[in-house]
Amino acid sequence: MTISEIDRVIQLLAKLPGLGPRSARRATLYLLKHGDTVLAPLVAALGVAAERVAPCSVCGNLDTADPCALCQDARRDRSVICIVEEVSDLWALARAGVFKGRFHVLGGVLSPLDGVGPEDLNIAGLVARAAAPEVTEVILATSATVDGQTTAHYIADRLTECDVTVTRLAQGVPIGGELEYLDDGTLAAALKARQKV
Amino acid sequence: MTISEIDRVIQLLAKLPGLGPRSARRATLYLLKHGDTVLAPLVAALGVAAERVAPCSVCGNLDTADPCALCQDARRDRSVICIVEEVSDLWALARAGVFKGRFHVLGGVLSPLDGVGPEDLNIAGLVARAAAPEVTEVILATSATVDGQTTAHYIADRLTECDVTVTRLAQGVPIGGELEYLDDGTLAAALKARQKV
Repeated sequence: MTISEIDRVIQLLAKLPGLGPRSARRATLYLLKHGDTVLAPLVAALGVAAERVAPCSVCGNLDTADPCALCQDARRDRSVICIVEEVSDLWALARAGVFKGRFHVLGGVLSPLDGVGPEDLNIAGLVARAAAPEVTEVILATSATVDGQTTAHYIADRLTECDVTVTRLAQGVPIGGELEYLDDGTLAAALKARQKV
Repeated sequence: MTISEIDRVIQLLAKLPGLGPRSARRATLYLLKHGDTVLAPLVAALGVAAERVAPCSVCGNLDTADPCALCQDARRDRSVICIVEEVSDLWALARAGVFKGRFHVLGGVLSPLDGVGPEDLNIAGLVARAAAPEVTEVILATSATVDGQTTAHYIADRLTECDVTVTRLAQGVPIGGELEYLDDGTLAAALKARQKV
């Protein structure tokens, strides 16, 4: 094949998570067949995103505004900061609509094996934010993995110098989860943190 | 979420085959995180594709040139035309590198139930091409589905007025196929078309 422009699109789409070479080809053909309805709007939207979307200097969220829309939102409680690993975690919490405070994106987790240390994460910015007088609580919403929990412990240590309550997400049986299929660790955590009915 | 530019990208990516809302979100985050290495090149490549890729006026292939690179390729045998349903089929045959003639994309199959008649497919162009004196053979490479075979029969009928040999792809056991898992139709076709060793 000598169709270099089309091949280039296929190669780039194949880099996206969830797409391989074969599905990238299908997606490319779909785009070329729907030039006016999908391809042209996508080119425009991606162009705007490439030009204007950047990490928020306050919380690390991705947005076209800086500070981002969530940080600027006056209805959000400024006394609580929820710490997440990645922007995708922030989006998940924001979509759920269950948290009305503000966020802080670490940009990853501590991982000595992968050479990720505290200076590689946005922790200094967090400590500075947590030191502000209006902040009273910091929620650790890192993943329930070894690295996620290690990171949470490290941050809790760093925050002892600030005058804030540090909390973390509850661990236990997920809603809709069947006991039969849960792992031992989850069952142990749920049993340990059992609550009076 | 009030991040309309990002949401717009997610919505458009979710329209691609193989991507749903969730994977479109992951893909969008990946693009935004890899702005220089993936997003910017993708915007450029898609822009070029949107502007310059169009169906070849001869065979129906998608390319930036018209006639397309395959039609212009002097090394390709001008006496054989291989008829395929879609551009993806053309790409599959071209990738395999097993066919050295030229192609003709129908743009679909006859399907009375879906209201697709002969005038909706690129059949008139095919008959005109097949009538050219240098063309001696037309290969029917439509899918081995009911609609694909109906379309092949219809085209074979239409080509009786041209002085060409009409052939079709062999049907039988696919390479690597295990007899145990083949359907009855394939087994019947393979048995009927058995060849002397």
